[in-house]
Amino acid sequence: MESHKDSRLASFFEPRGVAVIGSMREWGEGYTVIRNILDFGFSGRIYPVSRSSAQVLGIKAYPTVNDVNDPVDLAVLVTPSPTVLGLVEECGKKGITAVIVVTEGFAEAGPDGAILQRQLVETARRYGVRLLGPNTLGVLDTDNGLVTGPYFHSGNKPPGGGIGYCSQTGLLTFGVYPIKDKAFPISKMCDFGNKCDVNELDLLPFLADDPRIKVITMHLEDIRHGQKFMEVAKQAVARKPVLILKPGCSEVGARAASSHTGSLAGDDRVYENAFRQAGVIRLKTWQEFWEIPRTLSMQPLPRGNRIAIITATGGAGVLLTDTAVESGLVPAAFAANTRAHLERLSPRLARNPVDVGPLMSVLESPFSIYDQVVPVVLADSNVDCAAIVCHLGPPIVKVFSELVHRLSSIAKPITIFGYGINLHEMEDSARQLEAMGFPTYLDLESAAKALGVGAAYSRIRAKLETQA
Amino acid sequence: MESHKDSRLASFFEPRGVAVIGSMREWGEGYTVIRNILDFGFSGRIYPVSRSSAQVLGIKAYPTVNDVNDPVDLAVLVTPSPTVLGLVEECGKKGITAVIVVTEGFAEAGPDGAILQRQLVETARRYGVRLLGPNTLGVLDTDNGLVTGPYFHSGNKPPGGGIGYCSQTGLLTFGVYPIKDKAFPISKMCDFGNKCDVNELDLLPFLADDPRIKVITMHLEDIRHGQKFMEVAKQAVARKPVLILKPGCSEVGARAASSHTGSLAGDDRVYENAFRQAGVIRLKTWQEFWEIPRTLSMQPLPRGNRIAIITATGGAGVLLTDTAVESGLVPAAFAANTRAHLERLSPRLARNPVDVGPLMSVLESPFSIYDQVVPVVLADSNVDCAAIVCHLGPPIVKVFSELVHRLSSIAKPITIFGYGINLHEMEDSARQLEAMGFPTYLDLESAAKALGVGAAYSRIRAKLETQA
Repeated sequence: MESHKDSRLASFFEPRGVAVIGSMREWGEGYTVIRNILDFGFSGRIYPVSRSSAQVLGIKAYPTVNDVNDPVDLAVLVTPSPTVLGLVEECGKKGITAVIVVTEGFAEAGPDGAILQRQLVETARRYGVRLLGPNTLGVLDTDNGLVTGPYFHSGNKPPGGGIGYCSQTGLLTFGVYPIKDKAFPISKMCDFGNKCDVNELDLLPFLADDPRIKVITMHLEDIRHGQKFMEVAKQAVARKPVLILKPGCSEVGARAASSHTGSLAGDDRVYENAFRQAGVIRLKTWQEFWEIPRTLSMQPLPRGNRIAIITATGGAGVLLTDTAVESGLVPAAFAANTRAHLERLSPRLARNPVDVGPLMSVLESPFSIYDQVVPVVLADSNVDCAAIVCHLGPPIVKVFSELVHRLSSIAKPITIFGYGINLHEMEDSARQLEAMGFPTYLDLESAAKALGVGAAYSRIRAKLETQA
Repeated sequence: MESHKDSRLASFFEPRGVAVIGSMREWGEGYTVIRNILDFGFSGRIYPVSRSSAQVLGIKAYPTVNDVNDPVDLAVLVTPSPTVLGLVEECGKKGITAVIVVTEGFAEAGPDGAILQRQLVETARRYGVRLLGPNTLGVLDTDNGLVTGPYFHSGNKPPGGGIGYCSQTGLLTFGVYPIKDKAFPISKMCDFGNKCDVNELDLLPFLADDPRIKVITMHLEDIRHGQKFMEVAKQAVARKPVLILKPGCSEVGARAASSHTGSLAGDDRVYENAFRQAGVIRLKTWQEFWEIPRTLSMQPLPRGNRIAIITATGGAGVLLTDTAVESGLVPAAFAANTRAHLERLSPRLARNPVDVGPLMSVLESPFSIYDQVVPVVLADSNVDCAAIVCHLGPPIVKVFSELVHRLSSIAKPITIFGYGINLHEMEDSARQLEAMGFPTYLDLESAAKALGVGAAYSRIRAKLETQA
């Protein structure tokens, strides 16, 4: 709504100090927010605001925000809804320009809530305050450890990474997904909640500007200001991939969406066309939303859409080829010298998918076949990307730890689909491979889809560069 | 190929005695098969065949199968390919009517292998032997603990369950999936390998006859004998759901398939039509193959396609509605007394999806809302099935443990999509819920798709009953 190069946006993610206003009794909402912030190791200052406590979790508390003398850039409100309006005004008077309203009970709750929400927006405007929410879990920034969720999520601090991530539902944020256990490579995450002020028009340029962010993903139940969205989205797409999960494809889905956050979802074809024109890549499922950005954040973009598949089981090669083709990829035809190299290893190997399974079953050291095949295939000038199928366990981790520098110098994207019989060992190995930069999936389809999305973005980018 | 009511088929799964022929050195192929069989607690007799060992893992060994005096119904061959032909003949002479050829190096390996495979089939015919394979991991039967895989998979014994499962690739069997950790509810599983003799024409009627099996799932890279397949598939579909994953939808995928098991994949539209006419439900992905049968094996079939969604987060309700509609379901319109009951709990609750989230955040005991909502919604005569979204952890396990009898008396299918922040806790809770019979997914889409497949089968079944 406001100008989209707004310095106040940075205060939501990188405030020097954050005031937390809410119940400070043990496990009250304000207390829990502070527990989470401390737990994630926030590098800025924290100011609990409480009339009843002199200190909270060892931190000095203040009766009102006005009593804080240091600079406060962000306030987090987790108080009952009738108190929020007055507190936003207090924040405005104090000069706080970014306020997260975690509190529920606004437009999503019915007509009275909608009126209260409008008043909130008017008050915020009057004081030059930007609002995130209401009805939001707020933000997460892995760079400085800021997190504002009102549910305790100790131990769920993810590693850093290249994903910038916005959602219009708490379901798709840090409070309800094992982002640490799955090592979700996130830089900044934000829940728009009811989206009364801060929205995709703000976050698209903000995340596009952030050099640590390699891919922007958004879950949006609706998009208002279509013309402005197109403009802002195009500018972001020119700089990095923008992936959007927009549900409500089905008409009944759209009705469910409109009752959830008090917004009106439009005709789906309008969105479909808008996304295509802007170069936004549309995601279709919850699972794609979590899995696909992983590859784009960790791996280089492919220059084209020719995929090599290297697999320890022929059946996976067939299924991956299917999904790859559906995702816009084509199987690469290997160059003569690649075929010659593979034929020297085994006459049946010089095909794509490269089925290394039969050779593995006769080799003294079966996993060494990956050393001999993966770098050669990836270096082939007819190959733009590769999906690798392997047993997930210590041997393949060792192979990739020895290959990591050779592969990164080739600068083409790789995904791994790993199978096995011990789920914990598979997950441990996946995390070790990802710590080396190789996105590793336990479901077959994601390994191909993620490369397809990378190639789709490269095509979009090339088209934009031709037009420019 | 042979008559499909063939008593010899039972010998593959329920032999009184099994002979294992292969290297008996420690971790040799024969030794490993026996380790696996012992590990899974096979209830029949085991006869290691070895010229060099007098006993293997404490079990008396025999120089040849002919030296065994007890009844042997099944032989498992894991010897080098040039020896297999002679061994099949020996088995035939001994009167063994079921032979699993685990060995690779036949039609999948090139023209010479194809010739050898034809000779194998001719020899088997001559002696009245049925062959499974070659190039197969063989079978798994959880009822008697029979397993024939040549790779050690200690600890991967799954619980019993209602799924009968065939695959044309090892990728989709017990050797390469955490069936125990994921509590995959399997009764019988079989890998067709190169499918030189035993195939879907045999297993469809065999699994349809088995009263413990509630759903048949198959991965097929090709189907030969189309006319016969249609006949056999229709008969199976009349008794239980038949789900088939047939890759090669894309033309390039089809080419990859034809090079994998030496078979020729046909035009995909032919398969699509054949499946529709036979009432077979086609699965599209590896993930659907593992996830969807779970619900059909544990839960009753829905009488219609009207779904209720009960969710702790509005965003999940929207996404689930989308997937449900794409899967052929429609949101149920609740009856007046259901709406009245929900309205008494909270005015905003009487909608589908039922978003219990706002109420949970104000309840003293938040999870009690599921007690009050789930049975009432499920009992509504306008509701055929329900997907439930909840935080996966001890509280919801407790709720369902108290509801299990009430819900099972309503006899309508339920799926659960569970979220959380601790992956191990989520998996533990999912396993506990599934032990009570509630299929629990950690991915959102499967929870809706599985109910959609159930409803699709109910429609097919109703149509068949009208025709009959």
